[in-house]
Amino acid sequence: MNGRYDFASDNTAPAAPEALAAIAAANHGFAPAYGADTTTARAAELVRELLDADAEVRFVASGTAANALALATLCRPFEAALAHQHAHICTDETGAPGFFGHGLGLIGLAGEAGKVAPDALAAALAQPDFAHRQSPAALSLTNATEYGTVYSRIELERLIAPAQAQGCRVHLDGARLANAAAAGLDLAKLTTLGIDVLVLGGGKAGMPPTEALVVLDRALAHRLDARLKQAGQLPSKGRFYAAPFIGMLQDGALLRHAAHANAMARRLAEASPFKVRHPVEANAVFLEMDPPTLERLHAAGWFAYRFLDGSVRFVCSWATTPEAVDELAEALKSLV
Amino acid sequence: MNGRYDFASDNTAPAAPEALAAIAAANHGFAPAYGADTTTARAAELVRELLDADAEVRFVASGTAANALALATLCRPFEAALAHQHAHICTDETGAPGFFGHGLGLIGLAGEAGKVAPDALAAALAQPDFAHRQSPAALSLTNATEYGTVYSRIELERLIAPAQAQGCRVHLDGARLANAAAAGLDLAKLTTLGIDVLVLGGGKAGMPPTEALVVLDRALAHRLDARLKQAGQLPSKGRFYAAPFIGMLQDGALLRHAAHANAMARRLAEASPFKVRHPVEANAVFLEMDPPTLERLHAAGWFAYRFLDGSVRFVCSWATTPEAVDELAEALKSLV
Amino acid sequence: MNGRYDFASDNTAPAAPEALAAIAAANHGFAPAYGADTTTARAAELVRELLDADAEVRFVASGTAANALALATLCRPFEAALAHQHAHICTDETGAPGFFGHGLGLIGLAGEAGKVAPDALAAALAQPDFAHRQSPAALSLTNATEYGTVYSRIELERLIAPAQAQGCRVHLDGARLANAAAAGLDLAKLTTLGIDVLVLGGGKAGMPPTEALVVLDRALAHRLDARLKQAGQLPSKGRFYAAPFIGMLQDGALLRHAAHANAMARRLAEASPFKVRHPVEANAVFLEMDPPTLERLHAAGWFAYRFLDGSVRFVCSWATTPEAVDELAEALKSLV
Amino acid sequence: MNGRYDFASDNTAPAAPEALAAIAAANHGFAPAYGADTTTARAAELVRELLDADAEVRFVASGTAANALALATLCRPFEAALAHQHAHICTDETGAPGFFGHGLGLIGLAGEAGKVAPDALAAALAQPDFAHRQSPAALSLTNATEYGTVYSRIELERLIAPAQAQGCRVHLDGARLANAAAAGLDLAKLTTLGIDVLVLGGGKAGMPPTEALVVLDRALAHRLDARLKQAGQLPSKGRFYAAPFIGMLQDGALLRHAAHANAMARRLAEASPFKVRHPVEANAVFLEMDPPTLERLHAAGWFAYRFLDGSVRFVCSWATTPEAVDELAEALKSLV
Repeated sequence: MNGRYDFASDNTAPAAPEALAAIAAANHGFAPAYGADTTTARAAELVRELLDADAEVRFVASGTAANALALATLCRPFEAALAHQHAHICTDETGAPGFFGHGLGLIGLAGEAGKVAPDALAAALAQPDFAHRQSPAALSLTNATEYGTVYSRIELERLIAPAQAQGCRVHLDGARLANAAAAGLDLAKLTTLGIDVLVLGGGKAGMPPTEALVVLDRALAHRLDARLKQAGQLPSKGRFYAAPFIGMLQDGALLRHAAHANAMARRLAEASPFKVRHPVEANAVFLEMDPPTLERLHAAGWFAYRFLDGSVRFVCSWATTPEAVDELAEALKSLV
Repeated sequence: MNGRYDFASDNTAPAAPEALAAIAAANHGFAPAYGADTTTARAAELVRELLDADAEVRFVASGTAANALALATLCRPFEAALAHQHAHICTDETGAPGFFGHGLGLIGLAGEAGKVAPDALAAALAQPDFAHRQSPAALSLTNATEYGTVYSRIELERLIAPAQAQGCRVHLDGARLANAAAAGLDLAKLTTLGIDVLVLGGGKAGMPPTEALVVLDRALAHRLDARLKQAGQLPSKGRFYAAPFIGMLQDGALLRHAAHANAMARRLAEASPFKVRHPVEANAVFLEMDPPTLERLHAAGWFAYRFLDGSVRFVCSWATTPEAVDELAEALKSLV
Repeated sequence: MNGRYDFASDNTAPAAPEALAAIAAANHGFAPAYGADTTTARAAELVRELLDADAEVRFVASGTAANALALATLCRPFEAALAHQHAHICTDETGAPGFFGHGLGLIGLAGEAGKVAPDALAAALAQPDFAHRQSPAALSLTNATEYGTVYSRIELERLIAPAQAQGCRVHLDGARLANAAAAGLDLAKLTTLGIDVLVLGGGKAGMPPTEALVVLDRALAHRLDARLKQAGQLPSKGRFYAAPFIGMLQDGALLRHAAHANAMARRLAEASPFKVRHPVEANAVFLEMDPPTLERLHAAGWFAYRFLDGSVRFVCSWATTPEAVDELAEALKSLV
Repeated sequence: MNGRYDFASDNTAPAAPEALAAIAAANHGFAPAYGADTTTARAAELVRELLDADAEVRFVASGTAANALALATLCRPFEAALAHQHAHICTDETGAPGFFGHGLGLIGLAGEAGKVAPDALAAALAQPDFAHRQSPAALSLTNATEYGTVYSRIELERLIAPAQAQGCRVHLDGARLANAAAAGLDLAKLTTLGIDVLVLGGGKAGMPPTEALVVLDRALAHRLDARLKQAGQLPSKGRFYAAPFIGMLQDGALLRHAAHANAMARRLAEASPFKVRHPVEANAVFLEMDPPTLERLHAAGWFAYRFLDGSVRFVCSWATTPEAVDELAEALKSLV
């Protein structure tokens, strides 16, 4: 038996058929380069409709770059972004925000289950604006969070309002925003919360590599294409990054697939013989599992990663089948 | 009539069927992320075979980033890369080398038809190593050049040898290396010339977005994945960037398509009523055309760009048809 | 005979007695660090009086850093500053603007005698704002220029107005602003021209290392101390950088010494047997001298540098004596 | 009564007479710029003698910049430096290492009294070299530490050896190295420990602004002047940064003054009615004092800072008098 990567990440899944079909559909004839094509225009329009927002939309290759550039748009090098201490930008991107932001800092905030605790945010915002430290200029939130939980609209408001009151701008890492939406977050009202820049994930949602960079504060979009070009994120053949969003948005596949992934995560959580660490609100399940047990699971061919909170993550995607969940559940049960 | 982008760039073409078919073939089942998958391994092996070289190979999203990171690998911020003054890195990438290289400098060299003149290189290398200027640490060459000419092996040697003698490393921007190969350059012997890093172009060769970063000096590859991850160029779903290279390399489509593009360029040059500025050795034709004439061509729906040398560029690709060439030739004749 | 560095640069001179006396006067008792001391407050006030401007003033160690940081304040990494192609920031600072500005670009403009030609500026401003190039966000002017000439107020206006009309901010490199003032430029009206940031030189004016960074647009000064601290330009012992300005400003020594330096340059120009290349308006003289002659001058112990325009520069300072000028003139005559 | 800054920092003291006298002595005649003068050569020789080391020595304006550049020499942007979590580079320099190092990361290590705990270091070194995190390339140590303690030679060895075994280079922040030496650390044998770059502090030791950057691995010094120039740390008038070191080193004033400062700290610790938090081995005393008490001390005119460990720091310098210590001790007693 070969290794099973089904649950190792939502990056291990293949692309959804709607996404690939849209690429095939866009792959005819000659089209202007660098995002001036009609495929890109149509995809941007669909993103604006999804968010019910007037925004500049660009399709880029990398979520790491998109989020780091978003922060560089909001913070100067001698400033910092506030984020959950286990946010992807803090722990898994090899310092990309500092690279794209020329040394911009990150201030990690505590909080249960991947959500920034309002108290932790308040304490950070109460720090004096001192020239010897990088003071916050932005709040970065991730929804769904790294731990498979989902901020409600009210929870987002409770974090955004005090940050804005202290002069911070707001960035949303939406690598799994589709999963949050499928869990009940109303995307159409999201941007009225005061978000300045968000990244709507493509890859983890079942697309071949693409992410939508959505700049809601149009003033921040001045010379945006130049910013992207310099950073290697203005694709010459733009249609290949835009088309998957058409395929996934034009008939609702994005949210439909996300709902499926969320359901698979719930199915896994319910079947798990190990304690579930965090509420299963999106497409990931975190199980409490000691190191020898995880080694045995790996030996049985199932890959999964231990996270910074000590639990082990299992991620579902559009491609996760109920049968695979049941197989994994059996494997887990055999370890107990 | 809609605009015709056929000849505006090789970025305007759709992806070749071999490339898309390989993506479809790779798009099944779950695969490890970040380049640890078998598709990526196979594609890397094919690149090494093409170049007959033991090298670290990565598949990245952006030629801009790949070339800029390559330079950042070779030069420190207080050093510079030597390049033709009209090289893409000097004129068309919004300062990407300085961004990825933290201020690294570019020293533009003169030379006919996009080729660095040996005299210009010698003069630059003869400058004293002075702390108040960014002294050269690398020579960057582009083959085929921006002006559709091709350096022969001997021409490359004549530039690389003196640069290496002064302590410079060597970077090759191979966005159109396939066209150079189709014009007669022997890729299998290329890397013995002393090239340290090269970028083998995918996009301009007919693939959906992907470029191969080939690090020939393995010492430079230390923590290469970390370097790429930080810069937003370690794709999570690596197979989508690797598969097109399999499709294009496994049965020779890459060079076959490049040969076709080159042939179309020659056909266009032969039919052109305007003077051809540079030797047509690869897939581009540069015509001498005054501004009012170019405006009339645009008005007729054919897009083309004026270059820094004052001539107007027409680019052919795998998808260029003889009929399209003939149509363009007719359009050109009608302007005379 | 030892080498004579008198005319090699205005950096070779010792510090003027007024500057050192002010340091000695400030060197008593304990004082708050990082610019919160009374010496710094007093010096800043004197700079504001000199310029008749309400401005944020900081005293920093390095003109290279001060000018590069000023540009980083005005331009984002994917933008560029327009400057004379032989301006110090373009030719003599090892790419510092790109380092402090994270890849920000420089667009060199032609012009006689170190002054930007209005035509060259207009041509650069007329370039389309194209995402593949770094478009200008700032105009950087140097007064007195690198070639010892002085922009008049009207000349400055003719450059600043069209740049501002295209959305550019304005930086003034005033390493030799005292010499420009001594040549007749009215400093009290200077900042009404629309300058956003200027650097008032200390070192070349006869002070031990110190430069005044003057931020005229106070919005740009947000978190200025954090910007400086991060860049290594917020001196812990601020009084040592501030005191020299007190010594040089409180009784007019700055302009008096600059007037002397200018006078010495005129004396040298008048006595020179070699053709003077540029108008001698400030403290430098550029002579037309072929390489063998310059070598003989060096062999005779007098150091001077050949500049990019091909002429040889001789610089006077507060410490230049008429006798030294006459000695040099004799040495020059012996070479003819 | 005015505020008393005597104990707020060693940056608040005036410059020692030996340092200023040396500046006056160097301030005659014309001298080559940019460190090519005889004053700089003599000072560098004295630093080499102090350390009994063959090294490249430069005199720069800023400790922040010197340490950040040293780290940039040792780490690439996608790598990190290990340091005590309360080290100055981690907590008080506004992210300077990330700015000078283009995003290079810092990994904070725990440890009592400002010393890195060997266990914490071992745990960090045992982390897998993973492309999604910035893995360590350097160990940065501060001696004397931020908390006024001094690493012994054996303690340094115990940290350096395992770091080197994992491929890390070593940086020493010696802002208070003189105090460590006065506490018994043998400087002549220091560099045999495997330190690659160190910064020997001038400012905190009683000099006007200057720091010595000492590059012990000469391979790292390639194009060092270009590196410094680009970063604004190659002083044009080098003698002003070099001379203070002559004044302080030629007859032992550096260590004599440091011994005095250390003695004053011990005197204060002995007289303090508040609990002393850390061993008083160098020139600082950390007292346990609750916020209302510190406010009363400030109200009484004595400035001191609360540190990250919760205690309040009092620093002595060459200029601290026994009388001032006794006055402060009285003020402290009146608060109990």
